[in-house]
Amino acid sequence: MSLMTGEEYIESIRKIKMEIYMFGEKIENPVDHPILRPSLNSVRMTYDLAQDSQYAELMTTKSPFTGNTINRFTHIHQSTEDLKNKVKMQRLCGQKTASCFQRCVGMDAFNAEYSTTFEIDKKYGTKYHENFKKFMMYCQENDLTVDGAMTDPKGDRSKAPHAQEDPDLYLRVVERRPDGIIVRGAKAHQTGIINSHEVIVMPTISMGPDDKDYAVSFAVPTDTEGLLMIIGRQSCDTRKLEESELDVGNSEFGGVEALVIFEDVFVPNERIFMDGETEFAGVLVERFAGYHRQSYGGCKVGVGDVLIGAAAVIAEYNGAEKASAVKDKLIEMTHLNETLYCCGIACSTEGKATESGAYLIDLLLANVCKQNITRFPYEIVRLAEDIAGGLMVTAPSEKDFRDPKLGAYIDKYFKGVSGVSTENRFRILRLIENLALGSAAVGYRTESMHGAGSPQAQRIMIARQGKLAFKKKLAKEIAHVTE
Amino acid sequence: MSLMTGEEYIESIRKIKMEIYMFGEKIENPVDHPILRPSLNSVRMTYDLAQDSQYAELMTTKSPFTGNTINRFTHIHQSTEDLKNKVKMQRLCGQKTASCFQRCVGMDAFNAEYSTTFEIDKKYGTKYHENFKKFMMYCQENDLTVDGAMTDPKGDRSKAPHAQEDPDLYLRVVERRPDGIIVRGAKAHQTGIINSHEVIVMPTISMGPDDKDYAVSFAVPTDTEGLLMIIGRQSCDTRKLEESELDVGNSEFGGVEALVIFEDVFVPNERIFMDGETEFAGVLVERFAGYHRQSYGGCKVGVGDVLIGAAAVIAEYNGAEKASAVKDKLIEMTHLNETLYCCGIACSTEGKATESGAYLIDLLLANVCKQNITRFPYEIVRLAEDIAGGLMVTAPSEKDFRDPKLGAYIDKYFKGVSGVSTENRFRILRLIENLALGSAAVGYRTESMHGAGSPQAQRIMIARQGKLAFKKKLAKEIAHVTE
Amino acid sequence: MSLMTGEEYIESIRKIKMEIYMFGEKIENPVDHPILRPSLNSVRMTYDLAQDSQYAELMTTKSPFTGNTINRFTHIHQSTEDLKNKVKMQRLCGQKTASCFQRCVGMDAFNAEYSTTFEIDKKYGTKYHENFKKFMMYCQENDLTVDGAMTDPKGDRSKAPHAQEDPDLYLRVVERRPDGIIVRGAKAHQTGIINSHEVIVMPTISMGPDDKDYAVSFAVPTDTEGLLMIIGRQSCDTRKLEESELDVGNSEFGGVEALVIFEDVFVPNERIFMDGETEFAGVLVERFAGYHRQSYGGCKVGVGDVLIGAAAVIAEYNGAEKASAVKDKLIEMTHLNETLYCCGIACSTEGKATESGAYLIDLLLANVCKQNITRFPYEIVRLAEDIAGGLMVTAPSEKDFRDPKLGAYIDKYFKGVSGVSTENRFRILRLIENLALGSAAVGYRTESMHGAGSPQAQRIMIARQGKLAFKKKLAKEIAHVTE
Amino acid sequence: MSLMTGEEYIESIRKIKMEIYMFGEKIENPVDHPILRPSLNSVRMTYDLAQDSQYAELMTTKSPFTGNTINRFTHIHQSTEDLKNKVKMQRLCGQKTASCFQRCVGMDAFNAEYSTTFEIDKKYGTKYHENFKKFMMYCQENDLTVDGAMTDPKGDRSKAPHAQEDPDLYLRVVERRPDGIIVRGAKAHQTGIINSHEVIVMPTISMGPDDKDYAVSFAVPTDTEGLLMIIGRQSCDTRKLEESELDVGNSEFGGVEALVIFEDVFVPNERIFMDGETEFAGVLVERFAGYHRQSYGGCKVGVGDVLIGAAAVIAEYNGAEKASAVKDKLIEMTHLNETLYCCGIACSTEGKATESGAYLIDLLLANVCKQNITRFPYEIVRLAEDIAGGLMVTAPSEKDFRDPKLGAYIDKYFKGVSGVSTENRFRILRLIENLALGSAAVGYRTESMHGAGSPQAQRIMIARQGKLAFKKKLAKEIAHVTE
Repeated sequence: MSLMTGEEYIESIRKIKMEIYMFGEKIENPVDHPILRPSLNSVRMTYDLAQDSQYAELMTTKSPFTGNTINRFTHIHQSTEDLKNKVKMQRLCGQKTASCFQRCVGMDAFNAEYSTTFEIDKKYGTKYHENFKKFMMYCQENDLTVDGAMTDPKGDRSKAPHAQEDPDLYLRVVERRPDGIIVRGAKAHQTGIINSHEVIVMPTISMGPDDKDYAVSFAVPTDTEGLLMIIGRQSCDTRKLEESELDVGNSEFGGVEALVIFEDVFVPNERIFMDGETEFAGVLVERFAGYHRQSYGGCKVGVGDVLIGAAAVIAEYNGAEKASAVKDKLIEMTHLNETLYCCGIACSTEGKATESGAYLIDLLLANVCKQNITRFPYEIVRLAEDIAGGLMVTAPSEKDFRDPKLGAYIDKYFKGVSGVSTENRFRILRLIENLALGSAAVGYRTESMHGAGSPQAQRIMIARQGKLAFKKKLAKEIAHVTE
Repeated sequence: MSLMTGEEYIESIRKIKMEIYMFGEKIENPVDHPILRPSLNSVRMTYDLAQDSQYAELMTTKSPFTGNTINRFTHIHQSTEDLKNKVKMQRLCGQKTASCFQRCVGMDAFNAEYSTTFEIDKKYGTKYHENFKKFMMYCQENDLTVDGAMTDPKGDRSKAPHAQEDPDLYLRVVERRPDGIIVRGAKAHQTGIINSHEVIVMPTISMGPDDKDYAVSFAVPTDTEGLLMIIGRQSCDTRKLEESELDVGNSEFGGVEALVIFEDVFVPNERIFMDGETEFAGVLVERFAGYHRQSYGGCKVGVGDVLIGAAAVIAEYNGAEKASAVKDKLIEMTHLNETLYCCGIACSTEGKATESGAYLIDLLLANVCKQNITRFPYEIVRLAEDIAGGLMVTAPSEKDFRDPKLGAYIDKYFKGVSGVSTENRFRILRLIENLALGSAAVGYRTESMHGAGSPQAQRIMIARQGKLAFKKKLAKEIAHVTE
Repeated sequence: MSLMTGEEYIESIRKIKMEIYMFGEKIENPVDHPILRPSLNSVRMTYDLAQDSQYAELMTTKSPFTGNTINRFTHIHQSTEDLKNKVKMQRLCGQKTASCFQRCVGMDAFNAEYSTTFEIDKKYGTKYHENFKKFMMYCQENDLTVDGAMTDPKGDRSKAPHAQEDPDLYLRVVERRPDGIIVRGAKAHQTGIINSHEVIVMPTISMGPDDKDYAVSFAVPTDTEGLLMIIGRQSCDTRKLEESELDVGNSEFGGVEALVIFEDVFVPNERIFMDGETEFAGVLVERFAGYHRQSYGGCKVGVGDVLIGAAAVIAEYNGAEKASAVKDKLIEMTHLNETLYCCGIACSTEGKATESGAYLIDLLLANVCKQNITRFPYEIVRLAEDIAGGLMVTAPSEKDFRDPKLGAYIDKYFKGVSGVSTENRFRILRLIENLALGSAAVGYRTESMHGAGSPQAQRIMIARQGKLAFKKKLAKEIAHVTE
Repeated sequence: MSLMTGEEYIESIRKIKMEIYMFGEKIENPVDHPILRPSLNSVRMTYDLAQDSQYAELMTTKSPFTGNTINRFTHIHQSTEDLKNKVKMQRLCGQKTASCFQRCVGMDAFNAEYSTTFEIDKKYGTKYHENFKKFMMYCQENDLTVDGAMTDPKGDRSKAPHAQEDPDLYLRVVERRPDGIIVRGAKAHQTGIINSHEVIVMPTISMGPDDKDYAVSFAVPTDTEGLLMIIGRQSCDTRKLEESELDVGNSEFGGVEALVIFEDVFVPNERIFMDGETEFAGVLVERFAGYHRQSYGGCKVGVGDVLIGAAAVIAEYNGAEKASAVKDKLIEMTHLNETLYCCGIACSTEGKATESGAYLIDLLLANVCKQNITRFPYEIVRLAEDIAGGLMVTAPSEKDFRDPKLGAYIDKYFKGVSGVSTENRFRILRLIENLALGSAAVGYRTESMHGAGSPQAQRIMIARQGKLAFKKKLAKEIAHVTE
């Protein structure tokens, strides 16, 4: 089968009857809902760009399994070149959407599952790898978008999954049947699940022998019975209901998160990728997190490119683009953004093959990458707010602007430099507001902080991977210390 | 006359028939408008606290002119002790509102006008000081809230006021009459004007001899004919229309900004404080900016206290308050916040008397204070987001939470540590969201950046006040350089 | 008795026969030793400036005990004004020496002892306060320099003093006699002890009931039998032996540290200020540390002034003083330096009277002050190195410069802008080197880090003093949380 | 010919009769001079490691010109893999020497010359590329160390080379003869020239048509007549004369810089690589600077590894390695160091082939790399000083330590945790001092700042390469701005 066009993707999602709730109501038509549609458009961009010949090399590749051309978002990385191209593709998608395009999480789950199931099977003689490969090739062939669901609610963080008061606070197997398993639980902060055909579920932490029922991984379609989603609120979400294209800043694209409930969902045997092999829970988590920490070295850099561009435009519109202080701030924003990119690239090119043949990023550098992501976008935003000026948060609404009497005042007093319309000035200010404070700030700031694991999670990995013993030896050699 | 109670203040504002627009419509009853009311409540707090005996020493003082007890917000500072108490009062108000309480700008305008009019009169034999004193005492006696309006639209920043294509881009005198003047122009980003009884207008930059018509300062009531206001949009503004107390985070308090148009407004002679004395425009601006840069070392510190408290509460609710990384982040937030406070205090205690007898802050340290304000609140917010966790931006709406079916899921899966209700956890998360991304972020972040002048304005003042020649001499003495 | 002149001070130190070792040898004449003399000159500056009428107000004050004019370094602070003047005096001395002038530690010990002995006596009916006052007045009357010795070697930091393997790792009473006590132990990092007439010894940590012998405080002359000092190495220390005034950067002033051994030293009863009152050990430590953390908000700021001046001079000599990047770096250095000063001032003016009447700084803000001191001087140095250029570390020696052949080349090729001699350019570069890498870097960098307690010590105090419970209450009020 | 052993290298340098001055005297035997020998040992490490089979892949490669195995320091990069291996080799050498090993500058000059001469010849039909290839292959075959000399004194920076008052302030051709040219001028800050067999001279800035005599590049042996060197002073340089292995911290390795004078030096025609092609001066500079900015992403990271190791060792010796604050600081140091490495790797793998076939790094990312190098090592040093404690700058000298009486005290009072000797504790502290303040700080701090161009030079390149126009277009597309 061929790659889907953007339009085909939209229609394919329209056909899926997911159970989605928002503001206390069931959303019957999420595809056309003004709050949700921008997030669908962001995923759609991953299809549209794949149809565009100038991006074909980045967006598509040949499946090593079928030989067919596939969207890179469904690919199993075969080389460090593949890992690097993944990051470049993500930067491109960030540049084109200025938001979270949501399809990475499935790609990262694919690659984590591929090598982990291979290693489980090798140890236990199970069939998880075969199951997963079949599922993965089905997704490749049908060009599907897949969500990767990891974060459990976790309850009391000092206790293991099996030791929680409420046993469902980590997703678990509640019943085992000849043809499959029944699972219950929830996954929080699920980016893009409502725009996905399938969802891969993974455990969220390392587990001990008593957590057998929690060490479970599988995939199901997003309209599976018992699966329901509650949309999370974003800053300025309802501004999208106002029918003002101007005020939303980015009227076309956005991200979305949901709480996903698995209320006794049935998973057939052939869709199970792990069931009870507790010692592999941590492996799967570490690899998925590693891939996803790499991802941010691409997607957030692309969004950063748009924000830097917007800051440069508003500087020009404000007549300040030649001020040395402004130029220096744009340089600093670029410097920080490219430093993030360096981290995304470096953890890719330093990747290594796993036993399965699939390539894994360098885990130390991927964690370093994400750690910087928890810092630099905040500083880039701060500098953008500095350049933008206070009007970003005090500009009147589009309704005021379109009013004949008020609009005349606004136009008179908020004109930028000669030749620039007040409307265009407002458009760019609203875009910056969207990224700094609005719905896209959820993706560019808070998700940069907590997505793929909060900062402390990376610090633990940096400590673990930092080879301190080796470095101590280096120092002792130079200092001629003999013990 | 006695101090007003909060309730009396509300009713006094209700009586003023200002011309206010929002979303393209005239707001007939701003006092009870759900988007605007919280900002009125914040100003009200400056009245309520003055009635509270435990805060009397900070909130009130004796007028040196009448001997009567007045609200400190209407006071002319008589000592460094007064300057310091101003900052402490502002920290208190920030703690009680977690937002901008708007009354500072008038207080800072009062003090800048007091000494500047004194010096103009001394040079020119004018009566501005007498005019101003009369107005000021009227405000003291009636316990009024006064807006201080400075920021002109500025148009092409490379040109002086008189050289702009559109002569109205700086507010100016368009006609001089025996009984007064007619002014035209606009003031942008006017915090709290809709909650003020009077507005003091000041020039926004230093001026040359050709800018005579622009070197104008005066006061008029906020319902003066020809004066109209267009409310600026804030992040998440319309969330206040949803009737969800929970989702707004801070349901009681807020800030507000407006574009204020002066469409040929008449100002009677006795309300004029400057008219054409161009060389004093810069003096007035520098003093007002100086006082206002000091102010931020109080108010933002108070808001910071609430945010630190909220981060500490959510850490406890998440079961993470004993993690050393979390404790260290709370220490860092405290450290940064108290550093800001040190700057607010130091520029106060290093203040000096002006010729008029009123006390002026140390200008170098006040600018250092504000410069830090353009940085540390951003880092404090970043750390708060780190501690809060991703749920801050993915939590479902209150409507979902109140729905029996969805609410049960949300309650089950988003419970914090034992003994803490999901609702309380959400309340604190929404408060942090409000300060980090929501309507209060406008005040805590962007206003910290641009209020009282953008960062570069402080750097210019720091350069000017930094005594570099003296320091070069110190270095040459130590290095035994003789030239 | 009158204040000593600088010359009298030098001669008074010359008369004291201290036991000082350096490079494995006993130093018979430390006063004229080229490595040590600059440190003596720095202390001398505290005498010289007190003789200078333009600095009299800062450098001297009236003793509240005798009514006589005394050097402020021997003063017990009677008001927040006194606390503030202390900081200003320290900034002045830093500006005049560009190094550590060493006399603060005794002043801070004086003030900590004064209130603590008062409180011990109140509880136990002891005579420590009387002892201390007599000693303090003797020092005031004779204008003595006093070292304050606190830091014990500490050994295994996880164990209390009495539980150490070697009982001497904290200084302790080894014998109690009718006329006094015998003490044994050591104090590390003693700044300026070799330039002091007397030394006050204090415990270094909070103590428990089993640490009675360690909870001891007293004063003895620096030539007391059994007391010996070993000088610590500083970066570039021996460059002072080369007889090149140019190469040392700051040929006149410096600091010095020593390890001080108390080998069974006898202390007469009237010189004992604490002996066994273990619960007051922590009080004394906390107050001394607090005063000393305040001190750094003065002295390091003064040194910073010189470094900023030197950077500005070299920018001019390099022909770069008009480059916007250079100007901006000088602004940033000034901004950081004045932020430190704000902290020094604020913890002073927020001080409060103790029961004894002596004034104590605000402990929270003093710790905030010192915490910033562990950061900003490093950044100021980094910026100075940036402005200075690489020549700072590659310039040839003065011997090369004075050589006819080599000097001609050096003069030709290392000339700065027209009108500036190569020698003067080198002088300023060497001064910057001295502060960035050389012997003064010990004081400006590492002492900023560890003096008056390492960074983590301040963080613990900030956590303790940060009123987190109060702030949590503020947040809950705003968020309408009821538990 | 085969690779040289370390010993052969030393002897080969001994045979070269360079004219070297230090402290006003001619150094007859630099190879055995205690101040200079450590720098020679650092270069020697590049030979020793090439002999070690475990490092062969990194340290050596096949010459594409001769097919022979060569030291990678003499290689022309043929692929991004080569560029990456260069960085890894540099990290290794940094780890083994904890200092500047000096051989990079020649390697970077090689690669810049290779492609630039190719392009000059293509345009002008000159023979520079042939000249250079011959010289380069001679160096490969004989395994020579080559210095790359770029930085001219520059004089008045606002004037072009030809417009300087003294025409020699940029190195220039003073005479053209049939068999070659005569050059005069100087090159400052020459790292490692005294340990080099040959020196390549390059212009230092872009030039205009009037600067023809200054657009000159060539290579000569380091003992060429008219070439003399004056050694620059380093912090603590003379400590190496004291014969204390302990006190110097790193007794075996170091770096060295010199001012190099070209006093009418003759260059034969076949050693000329540019002569008058002014428009290529900038190309050569940009490429050399680019390669050298990449280099720092390897060498400084290796030195950082040693410093991190030293900090970890001293934490252990101090008994503090389990304190969460200490662990966190080590994580931060690692994080910063690996971020630098990411930049070194990324600018390599993003490299592209030049017309000549030789690979050039990505210039934007190489400049981003260096810009981070001007910041992070300073913070890594600060954190190391924090962990080390004050003893780093107050520990007595080895002479004190070896003295029976004093040594006993020092040993008693400065012992670390049980099982660790005071000597070993001192060794590690001295190593940290060496990197933070001592002679190695020149390389790790100031050279990180100014080597390969000062920070502002990178900012200009980042501005130039940052594709701001493209980013502005991205922003306008998202914001639907049509102009």
